[in-house]
Amino acid sequence: MEINLISDTVTKPTQEMLRAMFQAPVGDDVYKQDPTVNELERKVAALFGKEAALFFPSGTMANQTAIKLHTQPGDQLICDKYAHVFNYEAGGVAFNSGVSCALIDGDCGKIRADQVQAAITDPEFYHSPLTSLVCVENTTNKGGGACYELTELAAIANVCRQNQLKFHLDGARIWNALVAKQQQPLSFGAYFDTISVCFSKGLGAPIGSALVGDAALIHKALRIRKVLGGGMRQAGYLAAAAIYALDNHVGRLAEDHRRAKELGAILSQMSWVARVEPVETNIVIFSLQPGLNEAALIQRLKERKIYISSMGNNKLRMVTHLDYKEVMHDYVLESISRIGARVG
Amino acid sequence: MEINLISDTVTKPTQEMLRAMFQAPVGDDVYKQDPTVNELERKVAALFGKEAALFFPSGTMANQTAIKLHTQPGDQLICDKYAHVFNYEAGGVAFNSGVSCALIDGDCGKIRADQVQAAITDPEFYHSPLTSLVCVENTTNKGGGACYELTELAAIANVCRQNQLKFHLDGARIWNALVAKQQQPLSFGAYFDTISVCFSKGLGAPIGSALVGDAALIHKALRIRKVLGGGMRQAGYLAAAAIYALDNHVGRLAEDHRRAKELGAILSQMSWVARVEPVETNIVIFSLQPGLNEAALIQRLKERKIYISSMGNNKLRMVTHLDYKEVMHDYVLESISRIGARVG
Amino acid sequence: MEINLISDTVTKPTQEMLRAMFQAPVGDDVYKQDPTVNELERKVAALFGKEAALFFPSGTMANQTAIKLHTQPGDQLICDKYAHVFNYEAGGVAFNSGVSCALIDGDCGKIRADQVQAAITDPEFYHSPLTSLVCVENTTNKGGGACYELTELAAIANVCRQNQLKFHLDGARIWNALVAKQQQPLSFGAYFDTISVCFSKGLGAPIGSALVGDAALIHKALRIRKVLGGGMRQAGYLAAAAIYALDNHVGRLAEDHRRAKELGAILSQMSWVARVEPVETNIVIFSLQPGLNEAALIQRLKERKIYISSMGNNKLRMVTHLDYKEVMHDYVLESISRIGARVG
Amino acid sequence: MEINLISDTVTKPTQEMLRAMFQAPVGDDVYKQDPTVNELERKVAALFGKEAALFFPSGTMANQTAIKLHTQPGDQLICDKYAHVFNYEAGGVAFNSGVSCALIDGDCGKIRADQVQAAITDPEFYHSPLTSLVCVENTTNKGGGACYELTELAAIANVCRQNQLKFHLDGARIWNALVAKQQQPLSFGAYFDTISVCFSKGLGAPIGSALVGDAALIHKALRIRKVLGGGMRQAGYLAAAAIYALDNHVGRLAEDHRRAKELGAILSQMSWVARVEPVETNIVIFSLQPGLNEAALIQRLKERKIYISSMGNNKLRMVTHLDYKEVMHDYVLESISRIGARVG
Repeated sequence: MEINLISDTVTKPTQEMLRAMFQAPVGDDVYKQDPTVNELERKVAALFGKEAALFFPSGTMANQTAIKLHTQPGDQLICDKYAHVFNYEAGGVAFNSGVSCALIDGDCGKIRADQVQAAITDPEFYHSPLTSLVCVENTTNKGGGACYELTELAAIANVCRQNQLKFHLDGARIWNALVAKQQQPLSFGAYFDTISVCFSKGLGAPIGSALVGDAALIHKALRIRKVLGGGMRQAGYLAAAAIYALDNHVGRLAEDHRRAKELGAILSQMSWVARVEPVETNIVIFSLQPGLNEAALIQRLKERKIYISSMGNNKLRMVTHLDYKEVMHDYVLESISRIGARVG
Repeated sequence: MEINLISDTVTKPTQEMLRAMFQAPVGDDVYKQDPTVNELERKVAALFGKEAALFFPSGTMANQTAIKLHTQPGDQLICDKYAHVFNYEAGGVAFNSGVSCALIDGDCGKIRADQVQAAITDPEFYHSPLTSLVCVENTTNKGGGACYELTELAAIANVCRQNQLKFHLDGARIWNALVAKQQQPLSFGAYFDTISVCFSKGLGAPIGSALVGDAALIHKALRIRKVLGGGMRQAGYLAAAAIYALDNHVGRLAEDHRRAKELGAILSQMSWVARVEPVETNIVIFSLQPGLNEAALIQRLKERKIYISSMGNNKLRMVTHLDYKEVMHDYVLESISRIGARVG
Repeated sequence: MEINLISDTVTKPTQEMLRAMFQAPVGDDVYKQDPTVNELERKVAALFGKEAALFFPSGTMANQTAIKLHTQPGDQLICDKYAHVFNYEAGGVAFNSGVSCALIDGDCGKIRADQVQAAITDPEFYHSPLTSLVCVENTTNKGGGACYELTELAAIANVCRQNQLKFHLDGARIWNALVAKQQQPLSFGAYFDTISVCFSKGLGAPIGSALVGDAALIHKALRIRKVLGGGMRQAGYLAAAAIYALDNHVGRLAEDHRRAKELGAILSQMSWVARVEPVETNIVIFSLQPGLNEAALIQRLKERKIYISSMGNNKLRMVTHLDYKEVMHDYVLESISRIGARVG
Repeated sequence: MEINLISDTVTKPTQEMLRAMFQAPVGDDVYKQDPTVNELERKVAALFGKEAALFFPSGTMANQTAIKLHTQPGDQLICDKYAHVFNYEAGGVAFNSGVSCALIDGDCGKIRADQVQAAITDPEFYHSPLTSLVCVENTTNKGGGACYELTELAAIANVCRQNQLKFHLDGARIWNALVAKQQQPLSFGAYFDTISVCFSKGLGAPIGSALVGDAALIHKALRIRKVLGGGMRQAGYLAAAAIYALDNHVGRLAEDHRRAKELGAILSQMSWVARVEPVETNIVIFSLQPGLNEAALIQRLKERKIYISSMGNNKLRMVTHLDYKEVMHDYVLESISRIGARVG
């Protein structure tokens, strides 16, 4: 039995989810005639209080489409230096939209309204790129699963309104934030022009993301999804998994969070661990004492069939998820305490 | 019972295909750890005698990736005026690659080597875009399902080699061509730098295409698929349908072709039909006598639950496919002869 | 003495123009503080009855900026198959704007309103690029200097309005059209959203073009000119030449036209000439009898120090201009009649 | 008499330079037939020991062309957070090349080899943009005119070679660096793949920059200059000014540097000045004591017809240049000491 803590994207559908997929009525979604995709889109839009939603093969495409919708080539968007859209979407902001990123040196991947305000360029100074969009990520991936307070988002939304900027949420792990902070999706819908959400991370669906927004905007998104090559045919099988996940897998994220906190707690007791970032959701980021070798630790865990990943700069990451069960958790906790003795 | 002759993309998986899908072993394909996707990629590459293949959520993305691989922004590609890459990929050639199309006025969507030669710009004349790629489509979609002789393709490949141009095949319906012309995929592999193939048209899989080519090129394609947002997680469910289709649905395309020819034959006997394009595979394109209304014919058929589509300019199209069964075919043939009397 | 009939871009400033350049007050135009550039911009805008104008280092940049202003990446513009923006701007439509060209098979580079209407894609059919712009060239370069009637332009402008398309005039040689057709610039200003004009062709200035349009649009153009690298510092020297040319060199284009017609007339009498395109302005395009070698004719003229250019496909071009004087003209007319005898 | 210390771009040609301009032999540079442009290109290339050079209407276009030459869409370049290519070229890196900027938190706009090494992404990790280029600016504009030691550049060049990255120098003010550090242009030619130089800043020419590099690369640059719209006709007038400036205005930059240092020295004695950045060349950047108002200081100087500019964040900038004469300098020094008393 392998224990994969590399990412929450590695989960496989449960038998119940598979059954739901199997039985889904489907149609040709390129003609918008797939009833299950249509149902999912209505469901997600309603959840966030938005008029419409569109299904995508990946979170990257949902984010990239949003950025394209809100910008013109030459514009600049503001985001944290750790933002997924800047670091892990293959340079898509520039490739797909011709847009630059003004990076903010935030806190665990979270940015503040005053930092956003300071990063906006003077729209009349045509030598600099024009600021047109602010993107936040919630929870933050590279930032260690941190999540925003609604008041923090309200303040940024306010800066956006005052400066006629669009506001996009990369909500790849928004479900974790909702559970951890006991927030309502409707609150998010009120602050953002668009929100991307992902079904294939904590929710455990095999494939798929969605983008929510106003009807006119999502109608335009259809064209962008097409040009990027995201139009799929009988996508209802995938949408059915997403619907099942929304109905059954959101609440249980609390378990992932508990286990992540327990991992963080035991790590912080190890002499060989220099620092554990605050654990708010399902991501644990920690660094080793100076002089210790992260590759050696990864190898040591691998020998016990526990897989974790390096983030560079002596940092390591563990991510809990649907397929990480209690029995595995006990084994990992024990392994960490034992292995630690040898690493130290 | 509805009879949908609008496109061969509307097919739904058979029970056997569905079973294959949901028994497939899966993994995270973004990390290239989905065994079923990996198997499909090996299988398709081998079929065409190429080193590697990559799975895509759509044929548009497979084509767009190929175009990006073979060009630089500012370059020009040569294709027929009916080409799918020019007409039906949402302007992606310019959007994704910054590339222009030099259009050839071909025959039923097919172009000749001498036409390609004449369309190449002088590489030293830097006022014109630099020609770097030739794309052909086989079978031709807007051209009515026409297919190339191998000698025709060999001649174009030769022009490409002499002028250092890349050569891409949009093989969305290559399976129909192979069956109709009794050709071997290996012959195509030898002529082209890249070939895109589709599993969701005649083959009846719900979603997915692949691009085949040299290993180094396909390795680069991974980066482009990522930036376009085509990286999917547990895509093995989709790949399993494609494998099943390759193993079971290629030979039966001959039935689709027979039925399409029979539709063409009866249409050509109708007084209200001006012309039926030669039927080579599963696409029937015909035009009405001057003065007759194509919308009226579409409506008349719709009343009998037969759905066909307009191509503009008084042309109409019927496409046969996996879900168009013999009993439906008999009914459609009869309907055409009856309706005809009233239209005429 | 060399006689260069290759293009009207080869002219050099007259002594009077040079003096005007020399004495021009200048400033830093990047800060919009060059008084001579500002004067030129006001003058050109007023001429066409538009609110504003912007000076550019080239006609290509003026056209490319207009196309960028009027389109979004993925859109399609409609133009003639001979259009300069498609053929001779290095693929800039796709490179700079991510836009495709729907080419019309016009007459001597001129397109008709009904052809434009037929080329517009259905805005709801998101598989095709969205049509957003129509570009015409007047006079046509590759089309042989043909010019539009105002009624023809009015009809296209009408189609644009009805379909919410923008309408741009590539007026690189608009001055020739105004003189040949005795039209008013104000008429053109009324039909088009933007007009590019060139000072370095028939007008004889060394460098420079301008784009005219509404104030808001031209304000945006400043940003695009900057990103393309067209912001120049003390550009007043160049603007002074343009002002001088507008004041002194427009009327004399009639001489260029007379000489071009005389060249056309004598060519049409030569047994070795197959066809001379109708000569309306300062461009003469002719083709040789089958079997005759255009390179040989170019060489024969070169021996007499007369330089003309090939357009490919057995066509040749002569362009008259400011530096092509009467004495040269007599010599060329005589040379043609003599050389002809030997070619035939 | 106005004293403009806003930028060294505001200089106007001397009488001698003007005379050189208007006596220059010219031709059509689009056909590469302008003898003066050709002479300038040979001269600049030779100076840096490179095979070829190309003339541009602006430094922005020279830089943007270099970036396009060295990258593919989706790639990432590494530069300082103050870099002109990131901050003041209107987002051109993303607009023209589809490229992202990985920003380094350098020292006065200068970056170190170890910082470059740390910023390079893993080429096999296809989620991140591929690093392909490093850009340095010398002297640094926003960094206050700082210049590199050759050993620092050698170390970065070494990192580039080891990682197969291209290395570009934005040498808008390279002439100031050469004079200040007593370095040779040949040394720079050896480290960099391309160098852009500007003639319209310290050298006092009205318009123009050049890009130097290998012959093959500069041949490709011609195509990029064309697509951006930078092809000019009789550009010899501008090239003549650049030649004159290279022959006569390089050595005298030492005067600009002395005056800038004297401005820095007196500012550092003022009680109302918080900090003066080290003055190495012709740029003086200083900040006011907390609570003091930069707009007020700018206004106070303006009343004395001295113009300086704000850099934001309470910083102010003065730039010395060819048109800033000794008599003006005495007046400015005196004004600063007097005004200071009142500001303090």
